[in-house]
Amino acid sequence: MKGVLITGFEPLDGGANPSWEAIGLVPGVRTALLPCAFGGTLEHLRAAVAEHDPAVVVCVGQAGGRPDVTVERVAVNLDDACIPDRAGHRPIDEPVVRGGPAAYFSTLPVKACVAAARAVGVPASVSQSAGTFLCNHLFYGLMHLIATERPAVRGGFVHVPFSPEQVLGEASPSMPVAMVAQALTAIATTAVSVSLGGDLRLVGGSLH
Amino acid sequence: MKGVLITGFEPLDGGANPSWEAIGLVPGVRTALLPCAFGGTLEHLRAAVAEHDPAVVVCVGQAGGRPDVTVERVAVNLDDACIPDRAGHRPIDEPVVRGGPAAYFSTLPVKACVAAARAVGVPASVSQSAGTFLCNHLFYGLMHLIATERPAVRGGFVHVPFSPEQVLGEASPSMPVAMVAQALTAIATTAVSVSLGGDLRLVGGSLH
Amino acid sequence: MKGVLITGFEPLDGGANPSWEAIGLVPGVRTALLPCAFGGTLEHLRAAVAEHDPAVVVCVGQAGGRPDVTVERVAVNLDDACIPDRAGHRPIDEPVVRGGPAAYFSTLPVKACVAAARAVGVPASVSQSAGTFLCNHLFYGLMHLIATERPAVRGGFVHVPFSPEQVLGEASPSMPVAMVAQALTAIATTAVSVSLGGDLRLVGGSLH
Amino acid sequence: MKGVLITGFEPLDGGANPSWEAIGLVPGVRTALLPCAFGGTLEHLRAAVAEHDPAVVVCVGQAGGRPDVTVERVAVNLDDACIPDRAGHRPIDEPVVRGGPAAYFSTLPVKACVAAARAVGVPASVSQSAGTFLCNHLFYGLMHLIATERPAVRGGFVHVPFSPEQVLGEASPSMPVAMVAQALTAIATTAVSVSLGGDLRLVGGSLH
Repeated sequence: MKGVLITGFEPLDGGANPSWEAIGLVPGVRTALLPCAFGGTLEHLRAAVAEHDPAVVVCVGQAGGRPDVTVERVAVNLDDACIPDRAGHRPIDEPVVRGGPAAYFSTLPVKACVAAARAVGVPASVSQSAGTFLCNHLFYGLMHLIATERPAVRGGFVHVPFSPEQVLGEASPSMPVAMVAQALTAIATTAVSVSLGGDLRLVGGSLH
Repeated sequence: MKGVLITGFEPLDGGANPSWEAIGLVPGVRTALLPCAFGGTLEHLRAAVAEHDPAVVVCVGQAGGRPDVTVERVAVNLDDACIPDRAGHRPIDEPVVRGGPAAYFSTLPVKACVAAARAVGVPASVSQSAGTFLCNHLFYGLMHLIATERPAVRGGFVHVPFSPEQVLGEASPSMPVAMVAQALTAIATTAVSVSLGGDLRLVGGSLH
Repeated sequence: MKGVLITGFEPLDGGANPSWEAIGLVPGVRTALLPCAFGGTLEHLRAAVAEHDPAVVVCVGQAGGRPDVTVERVAVNLDDACIPDRAGHRPIDEPVVRGGPAAYFSTLPVKACVAAARAVGVPASVSQSAGTFLCNHLFYGLMHLIATERPAVRGGFVHVPFSPEQVLGEASPSMPVAMVAQALTAIATTAVSVSLGGDLRLVGGSLH
Repeated sequence: MKGVLITGFEPLDGGANPSWEAIGLVPGVRTALLPCAFGGTLEHLRAAVAEHDPAVVVCVGQAGGRPDVTVERVAVNLDDACIPDRAGHRPIDEPVVRGGPAAYFSTLPVKACVAAARAVGVPASVSQSAGTFLCNHLFYGLMHLIATERPAVRGGFVHVPFSPEQVLGEASPSMPVAMVAQALTAIATTAVSVSLGGDLRLVGGSLH
């Protein structure tokens, strides 16, 4: 999978880091670990893109509580943090990029990516919101970087569930790290080979 | 509440119409009933706006399963229907407005609207996605109309829960119509008196 | 509604007490307020039953997070507290009554009670577990009292949702106190007029 | 694991059978496949117990929608089917065993079983209700058989989540079959070595 950069976050609370572990199991891709902070994440992303010069960038974060792998569709120009980041920063209703457009759509073929994950046995779906915290911040920053400086790059964001170890006694949905890695491998492969214009016309919207 | 237009949808399936009933209980506003179809809804909205010449437009729809009143933050330029509309139409991955921007933010003071609903005793929160079905279609169409033709108008979208009558035996969250009307009254009043720039800086984002 | 005693709990945490308020709105019944503690609740119940000599006893508690009124079917002989009660007591895996049977079924006509609540417009269902905390403790204690000393009395337990005031900003299901009272009135009326043997044969079980 | 019999159900709808597959991966135990029907399941269970003469019987069923492995605590003497079984039979409010006690507690050390599953990395918890369908029917029938004819046998019931293959596009929690098998192995090992009297005093109750 030449030309794919996958990024993961360091843990928000200093604990486990299953999304980073999952990324490490995807064969043949470049990876970058990003800080869990509004200040710094986008600079690290820019540096990683400059270093690896990828054709496809897939940023990955954890959406604890979701039962399946979700391919995000849209990044919004909004930081609205309901908890502080690792640096204690907590922006409310600020733009990610002052003067940027309200939103960017993923340029990954989201339906084909979902279908590819399912084809390798991993439950997956399209998500219509990446929230307004660090994951959306990174997603928007990536798409703005692509739009303004790297128009040939395809980019998008994928949310992954808790690992079983994180929720042993919590009755919360989870997914083994190896299974997450299978989904990410299928998604990365699809992102390299299918353009957004060639995306599958599959059902995948939300009523609300 | 001079100058407020509130719209509701006709029922998707010909059954009950609690959001329309709720709108009818909001004092001192103009109302319009819109068809539950991708073809036609925006034309009806345009006609209602032309007729009433409002200062504020609040479109209302039902988000069955949500437990509280949700003030939507962002409309995306995407129709992706997971079920057919009343006319049997089911667009997949098509823009609401060809060539329109990826998204518009609500120009209602969403945090102040949420606070106003809570202040009258109704659970409420900000929502980061209005889905990709008719509600988002209408919301995007409204914001595009405002952006391109009616820049002085403030507009946004509010989702309301099932009514109790709709889910008597389904163990699903619901809210009485009169209570929904109280929230909508508080939201409309707030939308008239508070500008987006004067919105409250309250916690209200989503982690993912 | 001659001969009906309805009991409510004092708040666990000293805060609001919507179930007690709801009980106060049920016309023509006797009520008793019970302490939120493993030690004391059953003594208070016994005293209230002795004082009022009711034909029907309906104990009521709050099941925060449930969206509808639930008529409990079975009380089990088990105290297993996941949090301390108001007195700081936290029994783990102890019987409610040493030597008592494993469980008692409600002697209210649970299906007819559910149907009666729905008939007055309140979502309701049968629940197969009242948990292992104070509500089940009281429910089991009531049924044991009836079985051993008051065989002519009908008894059961009803769980009610959060009130809206308790969850204004929490995106949790809720139900207005007046609506809860309507359901309790319908349930009490049904419990007086319909015997367990005359219960309706309606669908109301759980798959698991 | 000498002396352990684990039973699984045939699929309710003729589809996949992950719980049966999982059981097949538990080393060193005897297994039996039971029909998904109120008429017949208990006869098959009795025959399997007679054939294998086990010291421990663990019956396993699927609880689709639950995110973790749940060790059931109590079986109730009630068949109340909300859907028909495979034979089209749908009992409503009938006893499993006419004249039997209202309930039996599991004689597995449920807290120790939960702890054992977590210790091998599988999310698990105690459940206070096995429903009123076939799983509870089998669980009650097992405990009644033990109580009346096989007092030396320990028995209980474990519910397992959907497999990923069953919910690829449904955004429902799931767990890989191999992981379920790990939990069942840990539970069976614990059930052999720890008596009910020696169960761990761990938190594991439910508020309601």
